[in-house]
Amino acid sequence: MTIKFTVYKGSKDGIKQAETERENLKGDEVLVRTTHSGVCGTDVHFQTAEMGLGHEGTGVVEAIGPDAKLLKKGDRVGWGFGHDCCGHCRQCMTGWETMCPERKMYGVDDLDQGSFGTHAVWREAFLFKIPDNLSNEDAGPLMCGGSTVFNVLHMAQVRPTARVGIVGVGGLGHLAIQFAAKMGCQVVAFSGTDNKKDEAMKLGAGEFYVTSGVKELKVKAPIDNLIVTTSAQPDWPMYCNIMAPGGVISSLSVDSKDLKIPYMPLILNGIRIQGGLVASRQVHRDMLDFAAYHKIKPINMTFPLTLDGIKQALKTLEEGKMRYRGVLVAP
Amino acid sequence: MTIKFTVYKGSKDGIKQAETERENLKGDEVLVRTTHSGVCGTDVHFQTAEMGLGHEGTGVVEAIGPDAKLLKKGDRVGWGFGHDCCGHCRQCMTGWETMCPERKMYGVDDLDQGSFGTHAVWREAFLFKIPDNLSNEDAGPLMCGGSTVFNVLHMAQVRPTARVGIVGVGGLGHLAIQFAAKMGCQVVAFSGTDNKKDEAMKLGAGEFYVTSGVKELKVKAPIDNLIVTTSAQPDWPMYCNIMAPGGVISSLSVDSKDLKIPYMPLILNGIRIQGGLVASRQVHRDMLDFAAYHKIKPINMTFPLTLDGIKQALKTLEEGKMRYRGVLVAP
Repeated sequence: MTIKFTVYKGSKDGIKQAETERENLKGDEVLVRTTHSGVCGTDVHFQTAEMGLGHEGTGVVEAIGPDAKLLKKGDRVGWGFGHDCCGHCRQCMTGWETMCPERKMYGVDDLDQGSFGTHAVWREAFLFKIPDNLSNEDAGPLMCGGSTVFNVLHMAQVRPTARVGIVGVGGLGHLAIQFAAKMGCQVVAFSGTDNKKDEAMKLGAGEFYVTSGVKELKVKAPIDNLIVTTSAQPDWPMYCNIMAPGGVISSLSVDSKDLKIPYMPLILNGIRIQGGLVASRQVHRDMLDFAAYHKIKPINMTFPLTLDGIKQALKTLEEGKMRYRGVLVAP
Repeated sequence: MTIKFTVYKGSKDGIKQAETERENLKGDEVLVRTTHSGVCGTDVHFQTAEMGLGHEGTGVVEAIGPDAKLLKKGDRVGWGFGHDCCGHCRQCMTGWETMCPERKMYGVDDLDQGSFGTHAVWREAFLFKIPDNLSNEDAGPLMCGGSTVFNVLHMAQVRPTARVGIVGVGGLGHLAIQFAAKMGCQVVAFSGTDNKKDEAMKLGAGEFYVTSGVKELKVKAPIDNLIVTTSAQPDWPMYCNIMAPGGVISSLSVDSKDLKIPYMPLILNGIRIQGGLVASRQVHRDMLDFAAYHKIKPINMTFPLTLDGIKQALKTLEEGKMRYRGVLVAP
């Protein structure tokens, strides 16, 4: 049996519709009919690359391979950045399969498919069941955006008593505010202008500071955990100055420049900087459960999951007009 | 009763002998007759500053103030960087008094005395009893050098199964190698030349790599914890390349330049960078016990604790000829 489906790929000439196919489902592979896909900054980066786009997919199981054990036809599932890992290295054996040297990821492997398409085929082991009270539309942006911000809160072992600074109130930031607020933290939002202040406060921020043109931030008290969600690296000296001793800085900016940060303040205040990627699978599951339990949802702008819809969504994102996450909806 | 004693101070014209005094012992103050002082790079930095030099002191208690409870005349004690803290802030209440905003430290407070002198007066709360099987001479360099390297091993929660890289085999590095080796770790030493290879291996290193003129390090396996003990910041890209996913970089270099480090490798590999200062007091105590139990000792070059001896020791250190820690011995 040949499985054929439509995908949307990047190319030097822009995004194109294409067909791809699989010969049967092997091992624990699962065929998913895509119902929704979140739209992420990484998709903007990749739109000129020869690859299937989209990595915040949700859908419904249509068929399962011979070794699939956990999912059945009709189950609602989602997927994110990761598609496979070796299963036997040090990282895989300790719940860090996101760091497996043989990991398969969006943008690097499985280039003929993505969540921008009618279907996709993924290993069951890398699909996530969507909790009952979370819709496929709302779960989409959690598959990468939600996973990424939840993961840095997890990696930094943020405590409920911490003051958590969120730099940038966008696709990632508006989710980070909600997660940190529901964890009990004092949430301190930083944004270029005060345009998003009301929404940030509604989402759970307790303080809001405008950063555009500002050289020195005057916060009520120092920040224990700083989560940087802006697309480029921020003004590091300015943020270093508001960190509490022993504070943790987690940066999610994707930026080809070096990290350049004041060195002695780091040493003298015992500040930690830590990189973070999407969550490993158990953390991702915990994130979905936490979101479902606390009714954490992205604020979405929807577009049709068509060639035109994709182009429009990416354009909206590139122009900085997305409030706050784009979701493509299958027609 | 006026207590008078000799100290050695920095000045614009070089190190000078001076007298200082105290009117009685107040509170939990303790008068210590200094028997030994380690010599640290920080003393080199401060030799032109108007302040009492030395912060790796050991000695014998001569008298105690009215509120001292734990020490008695004749006890062997040592002290390091820290002399006081507020006792009631968040940092003090959680065992991080080294980060207390009101901390008193070498080079900033108590400028009229140091461990280069005949005596010093310190709060009992900031003196450490020296374990029985550790001499005052060997305990000296542990008060800052040992404390500092032990502290980053502690802060990074280094596991006995980790591969620990030590950059620089000097005053700090030769202690770090011993601590990490006795913790069960695979110790990987990096040094400019192979001059110190035999000693590094004897101290507990399992591998040794020469770095001078090298652009790419070829280690047997990636490094989980990197401890940088060189006086200036190292070639960060070269070391980033050998870090294991999720690895921790701890830098002890004192350097006024910014930290400039490849950013995306940090993010993609989940690498953590963390600053570190001397240990807080309980960690310092644990360090002394660990050193005493495992017979961890500095390799010392001794000099007389006199004006000439101090000058000679600092010169030896500045010229990079100290193997591996200088200790001044009271005449």
